[in-house]
Amino acid sequence: MNIKITGTGSYIPSIVERNEDFHKHTFLNSDGSIINAPSEVIVKKFKAITGIKERRYIKKDLTTSNIATFAAEKAIDKANISKEYLDYIIVAHNYGDVKNGSVQSDTVPSIASRVKHLLGIENPKCVGYDLLFGCPGWIQGVIQAEAFIKSGIAKKCLIIGAETLSRVVDPYDRDSMIYSDGAGAVVLEATDDKGGVLAHEAATFALDESHFIFFGETYNQESDDPRCYIKMHGRKIYEFALNNVPLAMKSCLDKSGINISKIKKILIHQANEKMDEAIVKRFYELYDMEMPEGIMPMSIGKLGNSSVATVPTLYDLILNGEMDGQEINKGDHIMFASVGAGMNINAIVYKV
Amino acid sequence: MNIKITGTGSYIPSIVERNEDFHKHTFLNSDGSIINAPSEVIVKKFKAITGIKERRYIKKDLTTSNIATFAAEKAIDKANISKEYLDYIIVAHNYGDVKNGSVQSDTVPSIASRVKHLLGIENPKCVGYDLLFGCPGWIQGVIQAEAFIKSGIAKKCLIIGAETLSRVVDPYDRDSMIYSDGAGAVVLEATDDKGGVLAHEAATFALDESHFIFFGETYNQESDDPRCYIKMHGRKIYEFALNNVPLAMKSCLDKSGINISKIKKILIHQANEKMDEAIVKRFYELYDMEMPEGIMPMSIGKLGNSSVATVPTLYDLILNGEMDGQEINKGDHIMFASVGAGMNINAIVYKV
Repeated sequence: MNIKITGTGSYIPSIVERNEDFHKHTFLNSDGSIINAPSEVIVKKFKAITGIKERRYIKKDLTTSNIATFAAEKAIDKANISKEYLDYIIVAHNYGDVKNGSVQSDTVPSIASRVKHLLGIENPKCVGYDLLFGCPGWIQGVIQAEAFIKSGIAKKCLIIGAETLSRVVDPYDRDSMIYSDGAGAVVLEATDDKGGVLAHEAATFALDESHFIFFGETYNQESDDPRCYIKMHGRKIYEFALNNVPLAMKSCLDKSGINISKIKKILIHQANEKMDEAIVKRFYELYDMEMPEGIMPMSIGKLGNSSVATVPTLYDLILNGEMDGQEINKGDHIMFASVGAGMNINAIVYKV
Repeated sequence: MNIKITGTGSYIPSIVERNEDFHKHTFLNSDGSIINAPSEVIVKKFKAITGIKERRYIKKDLTTSNIATFAAEKAIDKANISKEYLDYIIVAHNYGDVKNGSVQSDTVPSIASRVKHLLGIENPKCVGYDLLFGCPGWIQGVIQAEAFIKSGIAKKCLIIGAETLSRVVDPYDRDSMIYSDGAGAVVLEATDDKGGVLAHEAATFALDESHFIFFGETYNQESDDPRCYIKMHGRKIYEFALNNVPLAMKSCLDKSGINISKIKKILIHQANEKMDEAIVKRFYELYDMEMPEGIMPMSIGKLGNSSVATVPTLYDLILNGEMDGQEINKGDHIMFASVGAGMNINAIVYKV
């Protein structure tokens, strides 16, 4: 028995927020002081480091559970199975449903229950739960689904990564420009077909790193805004990721027994273009190799960082021929890898 | 290989909120109209149905992740293992950390990462994640940990249920009196010892039932309070639970191959005394039996409904001889069962 992705789907939100749209923002440092540069310059520098030109936001009347459902419908359709045969619905997210204008996250009922409701699935034996694991949540969902299938408690699982970070961004924070909304989903099944999930690696670094990404107050100290927003210590994360993600990827690849030369694509969490390049470059250095050209497809320029949604969305776009010059074909060995809040890291070696 | 609980721990919050403390409340109907009875009478009627005399609240300076850690420390200590050998930390909750006075849930980083940080665990291979599955979240965490162990990706897992519902209750809502705070934890391990988890059942009813328990506005329609609170359609839940929980328990027991006469104790989610009695009574009726006396230990009178924490806390209290007239001994067959937001139902047959 092998365990393979039999269908993929994604949802790209309709509102395009361009870098120029941030020119009107007043950006502050974390201590509340004004950053001593015009917004245009800050935005330009941001683009040079992250590679982000624009990002996507959902419309006012939508929430995370809606877009999770849109992606799920496509994945179920591609897998060509009845939704009633799903054993598990796993939804990775971080903030639940944050309605437009609301000050709160809404996690009761779980997003998985809402998605199951919206999909109109009747079968009560289809179990839905939410998984909170930072940006690596979708990959972790695949790891969990694999364990369920291996242990005999499931045959078909739907794993969704959906997030609407536009609802938790501080307009005074430069890092706001990173965050985006999106949803990606796959159906993972037990199959007699060759390939599938070959190995995984997962880790949680919490001793010193637990609060590198956190929920914090606005940088505008004159405001009486009681809300918290997504915040991060960017430099610490950069250093942490560079030191730890390549090693986790190597550990995963070595477990799989696959030679690095066989890896056709690395689909890494779309967090920061320069950081992702540095990670994958260092991963190849661990094997005394140079990073092959085109190995790392990047969607971040147009889609930003949509947390748990980036990896499944990227995979879906490539399979659908929607990423210029990028393709993945049956029999290819690929890697998924992610790093994010927790701080969590994970990776999967997968044969298509 | 068997999969057994090797250590348990719980945390009972220090603030005792008695029924009399609610006499000063103004209780409203969901449409905002005043309930036509003195608060004393409402509270008395509440006690007669639910069996709740008092409930526990955490102190102002604590959050869910703190009390999760307190319970975890005890469970690790009882299991007599090094915390560094844990492969997984699974934290079931529903609302994340809601700081006293805050209007928001805080779920980034995950509660599991916070707990791992507070426990001071260094080993990055110990993976921590949060599981949202309504009140049945802790039992579901045990089911997931069992799958991880069976599939070979873990040997030792820490499963915590922790919740602070006192931070999300609407003072105008009678149902507020149900909710409580608490934390319970177990260590689950692969072992050569006899017994352990014998069977499980899990289900999500979301077609009509997804919003029987939800996050809604205060009943005080004159208030400009923007917050949402835990809300439920009590009558619908009662009917739903009575129709579905006994069948899920029967399905679980039949899978285990254990005769119902062998079951020594049923540890059911502490939601409502009358409802729990009716569920277990109906469960025995499915086998043409009367409910044996003392089969269902109840902590709800003194501890209220602390969501995910009720079942592991109850188990820990019984093992520690802290429940009058109740004991569980090595070799006993017991059942865990739960129902809650989602609507989710689950059960486990376990040999001690």
